[in-house]
Amino acid sequence: MPDFDRLKLLASAHNDTVKQLSRLIDSARERRRAGLMLLEGIHLIDAALAAGHKPQVVYVNPAAEHHLELRALLSRLDCPGYLVAEGALSRVTSLASAPEILAVVPRPEPNWTKAPECAVLLEDLQDPGNLGTILRCAAAAGAAAVYLSKGCADVFSPKVLRAGMGAHFALEIFEDADLAAVLDAFAGAKVVTALDGAVSLYTVDLTGPTAFVFGNEGAGVSPSLQALAPARVKIPMPGSAESLNVAMAATVCLFERVRQREAAAG
Amino acid sequence: MPDFDRLKLLASAHNDTVKQLSRLIDSARERRRAGLMLLEGIHLIDAALAAGHKPQVVYVNPAAEHHLELRALLSRLDCPGYLVAEGALSRVTSLASAPEILAVVPRPEPNWTKAPECAVLLEDLQDPGNLGTILRCAAAAGAAAVYLSKGCADVFSPKVLRAGMGAHFALEIFEDADLAAVLDAFAGAKVVTALDGAVSLYTVDLTGPTAFVFGNEGAGVSPSLQALAPARVKIPMPGSAESLNVAMAATVCLFERVRQREAAAG
Repeated sequence: MPDFDRLKLLASAHNDTVKQLSRLIDSARERRRAGLMLLEGIHLIDAALAAGHKPQVVYVNPAAEHHLELRALLSRLDCPGYLVAEGALSRVTSLASAPEILAVVPRPEPNWTKAPECAVLLEDLQDPGNLGTILRCAAAAGAAAVYLSKGCADVFSPKVLRAGMGAHFALEIFEDADLAAVLDAFAGAKVVTALDGAVSLYTVDLTGPTAFVFGNEGAGVSPSLQALAPARVKIPMPGSAESLNVAMAATVCLFERVRQREAAAG
Repeated sequence: MPDFDRLKLLASAHNDTVKQLSRLIDSARERRRAGLMLLEGIHLIDAALAAGHKPQVVYVNPAAEHHLELRALLSRLDCPGYLVAEGALSRVTSLASAPEILAVVPRPEPNWTKAPECAVLLEDLQDPGNLGTILRCAAAAGAAAVYLSKGCADVFSPKVLRAGMGAHFALEIFEDADLAAVLDAFAGAKVVTALDGAVSLYTVDLTGPTAFVFGNEGAGVSPSLQALAPARVKIPMPGSAESLNVAMAATVCLFERVRQREAAAG
């Protein structure tokens, strides 16, 4: 319970702490090595707490002293907290300006063995915005598990966390997954989208267990993964524009499943 | 036909040109005053040319001398062209590094009076990424016209053009539109989404002419516009996550219309 008024200003250890935070912000390798992620701002920390994650330590912006949501959040925390001068915080953050609070939190581990009703498999996704958007969409559409290949951008990077808007904590996230093994073992519909797919998404039965595979922004889904799906599926596009980006395609696919299940439920 | 090898290096006028380009990149007001937009990179200029837009002048990066696509593009242009040193170009561009080419192009005017089969109305959308993504989705889904309220971000800004990936040139775009008048006059389904909407999107008949209204990222669609739609529509979200962002919501809505029309066509 780090009450705001009892927080101590970081002084002697200051520089080392700022350096450690900078490394956690900037380096996926450092985040993995330390088994940590850095949550920036009240909203993300709130979502993590609600899902049972426990920060190791928080760093608070003295300029946010009168922020009521911040004070409410602090009262729910059970870890050490320190004030860090706004100038130092703004050098550390990935945001345009210093957040009210930063939390160092152990990287979540998936803790789950049952097969998901709806799984999202991501192969070598590189763009943090796409990755976060897909997680957000998966969580909204009720998908339970997301599997990421080794070639994906770090799913717990500041940008992905920001774009995910807390969705990370509503999902089981499996990193460095063997997508071929996951897809092969999956009992249910297997949907791999491709621009030149032969089957319209809208004709595939998605009311049961479903695994969706989305591929790299440039290369799409690899042939070896495609071979594990019964058919290549396309999203019909009547317009003249180029294809949707992968986050939009995932949105269409995941919500087509929502629609079909709603229709099936009457 | 500015053949690469005959392009002249900007020298004396250099500084003034760079200043003008910087203003066009940075300032919506300046773009509107001048009636111009700035297209960065081969892909966007290519899309604009294909749609019949004519650059006034292009500025070419000498470092792209051996870029075959650039040479092909130049051969199709009918305007003056100049080489600008890469260092100067990289100070002007909104991209991370200097593009191969920049084009100054008259801002498109909608040239169209028939009522669209599918219209997208955007009220006070602020985020350039959302705006561009919605344009891209509208073009892919076959919507023909986009109407923007005065409070929207500049639809011809570099960021929106980039996120739109050429969709701007596949659409009729009406800026500073009186959305209430457009919606009131629209003959067809009128869909305003709201988190607390009473009607599921999936129960609305979208097979005929349809106008979709999407609102500001924070405030949503204003009550006065909502009042002009027969019902507030929601996208069902079985998951635990917060709502979709406006670009994802638009993607779901526009492709639900694609699906219904495909199903109706058999």
